[in-house]
Amino acid sequence: MATKRNDKMNAFYAQSGGVTAVINASASGVLQTARKHKDRIGKVFAGRNGIIGALTEDLIDTSKESARAIQALRSTPSGAFGSCRFKLKSLEANRREYERLIDVFRAHEIGYFFYNGGGDSADTCFKVSQISETMGFPVRAIHVPKTVDNDLPITDCCPGFGSVAKYVAVSALEASFDVRSMARTSTKVFVLEVMGRHAGWIAAAGGLIEDEGIPIVILFPEIAFDEKKFIARVDTMVREHGFCTVVVSEGAHNADGSFLAEQGTRDAFGHAQLGGAAPVVANMVKQALGHKFHWAVADYLQRAARHIASATDVRQAYELGARAVELALAGHNAVMPTIDRISDAPYRYRIGMAPLAKVANVEKFMPRDFITEDGFGITEKCKRYLRPLIRGEDYPTYKDGLPLYATLKNVAVARKLPTFEL
Amino acid sequence: MATKRNDKMNAFYAQSGGVTAVINASASGVLQTARKHKDRIGKVFAGRNGIIGALTEDLIDTSKESARAIQALRSTPSGAFGSCRFKLKSLEANRREYERLIDVFRAHEIGYFFYNGGGDSADTCFKVSQISETMGFPVRAIHVPKTVDNDLPITDCCPGFGSVAKYVAVSALEASFDVRSMARTSTKVFVLEVMGRHAGWIAAAGGLIEDEGIPIVILFPEIAFDEKKFIARVDTMVREHGFCTVVVSEGAHNADGSFLAEQGTRDAFGHAQLGGAAPVVANMVKQALGHKFHWAVADYLQRAARHIASATDVRQAYELGARAVELALAGHNAVMPTIDRISDAPYRYRIGMAPLAKVANVEKFMPRDFITEDGFGITEKCKRYLRPLIRGEDYPTYKDGLPLYATLKNVAVARKLPTFEL
Repeated sequence: MATKRNDKMNAFYAQSGGVTAVINASASGVLQTARKHKDRIGKVFAGRNGIIGALTEDLIDTSKESARAIQALRSTPSGAFGSCRFKLKSLEANRREYERLIDVFRAHEIGYFFYNGGGDSADTCFKVSQISETMGFPVRAIHVPKTVDNDLPITDCCPGFGSVAKYVAVSALEASFDVRSMARTSTKVFVLEVMGRHAGWIAAAGGLIEDEGIPIVILFPEIAFDEKKFIARVDTMVREHGFCTVVVSEGAHNADGSFLAEQGTRDAFGHAQLGGAAPVVANMVKQALGHKFHWAVADYLQRAARHIASATDVRQAYELGARAVELALAGHNAVMPTIDRISDAPYRYRIGMAPLAKVANVEKFMPRDFITEDGFGITEKCKRYLRPLIRGEDYPTYKDGLPLYATLKNVAVARKLPTFEL
Repeated sequence: MATKRNDKMNAFYAQSGGVTAVINASASGVLQTARKHKDRIGKVFAGRNGIIGALTEDLIDTSKESARAIQALRSTPSGAFGSCRFKLKSLEANRREYERLIDVFRAHEIGYFFYNGGGDSADTCFKVSQISETMGFPVRAIHVPKTVDNDLPITDCCPGFGSVAKYVAVSALEASFDVRSMARTSTKVFVLEVMGRHAGWIAAAGGLIEDEGIPIVILFPEIAFDEKKFIARVDTMVREHGFCTVVVSEGAHNADGSFLAEQGTRDAFGHAQLGGAAPVVANMVKQALGHKFHWAVADYLQRAARHIASATDVRQAYELGARAVELALAGHNAVMPTIDRISDAPYRYRIGMAPLAKVANVEKFMPRDFITEDGFGITEKCKRYLRPLIRGEDYPTYKDGLPLYATLKNVAVARKLPTFEL
């Protein structure tokens, strides 16, 4: 995978897909490490709103940002340069877009491509490395993993996940204490909906509070929903403990594949209502068992919650950003730095490397032996996996009660090419 | 209000209504202060599940808890002894219950009644002081204020509110950074639903992030919802900033009094669906303006979020609990310690005292001059009021990634009376 390069070149960095509490920590790792190698990396241009910034030649000159601002990114959630949901089509279907990328890279002397995203962007990153070779303007393309869904293969975990997992575990614990207080005369069942369309990693984090004495029922996307079994499980929990907490993945679905969240709810005009899985599940419990309930849908709050980020996650996000630059400088191409776990307790890991050809378009689901036999909980094996990922607190600095999050200047680079229609 | 007392008596403490992130800090204040006065206060018995514990003679002997456990309550959310939603009827309508309370107090030599709750419990506390006099077993009844709704009169603020306000401001800020990152190709409007059935104090806290450059629209229960004006406001915000955050109070309602949350949503069977205001508002924006949206309902997460509690709030909750005991020892009865603000910046306050006759059954709404003229934001005056209340962080201790929250032993006191049917 290594190719020889001698020239000093500029670099491109972009954030892709749903942002996280720590994707900016990866950005900080990329930018700080690039700044240490000014002999080989000129400027780092960031794509405004992700890859769209590259296609439209809307580049941000990160050299205009102070060292302090770049440091502050480490504790700022969201995507500092903007992200986008924009998947490049296959090379065959849309060669034009890939060629445009290379034109922009050529115009701005960009020899390094750092793409910070999930499975789709790993695929884009891989294709960029391929076509750049074909077009005679070789770019070293390194993917920096990021996804709250934790569904990338090869790497033991994905930056963004540990912090969401910590948010979910802490929030579920706090709400469960609340319900336990109220259960005698009021709320007996609390339902928390969390992210995870296909993989149940985030929902699994709720299982960590079982060891704190909380009766918990988890609905994973990996396990087809069985209403009868679910109601029986909640009934048992409430009888035994007086209350129960349910963590439902947004991707929880029936055996026929239909999502719980789309249980045929209609608004006053008969339009299908975009609701959550949580109210559906909560009302189901009410109708079957009569228990008072409360429900919450965490949505963006969970993935943006930098205030309760996992210190492990923040550190790994930064390290993977930094390593991406080091890999590029070492001549690697079409690879992604990975977290390779050495041991659970004490938690030890090393940073490894995976070829993008093996990463792109592969989703990693919860292994069946991470889920209890009845399908409603997590096993000790899963807990051993999860515990180190939520460990440690990494608080932002506060001023007057609010966290000091960085907003960058995001100064545009002068355009050199004709405009390009998306 | 002062009455003379010489005997050493036991005390009763109970938590009432919806619990908060800091009601246990008040409990810690009550218990630690009582322990300092063992010459005058014997044991403190807590009601298991609030006032129901007193009625059913289900008392908890708090002397069985270690000093360390009582200290740990300061950083544990929820109600450590259990709370309840149970409003005693008027003296006329249900004299039996009040008389039972006095019977239990007499049987357990309880001469101090500390009741930790909102407006309803202030009323109960007042009546207990009245009937105990009538029945010839005078009990000093002190109310410890608590409510996330911040709607008690006389006191400048209520313990529980500052922490919810901080949670809402921090969460809205983080989610807004997230939406700002995504707005170019994806989500443009984020809707966060917060508590507050009648008063908009909690929703108001979202307005604090305006100073961080976030375009925000607030829907208060104090202002009748006007769909046309609302859509126009969101449209303007998105045009100007590219995105917009909406904070909607659960109590937001139309001019005819109907709640937005009950906008006629039906499930597949045609049953009225218990939904939130957030999805209703989000779908309204989608239909009118076509913007992609995300929505969250914080529900219990907001009021249980001890991990992001306001240091000001924790301190005041503790101080009011401690002061309640001091007031009782000083011979006061039928009063509530209050926060009396001296200045906004620097923030200074003293602990005052209010007669319960003036507290019970009075709700404090947002003053009109705290809400901007258009009804969608908060004024500088409101910001000056809110800022000190969310100031400071008071983090719990963590172990292995999760906060160490205390679960008490809650040892029952032996019963002395016949059973009592609620």
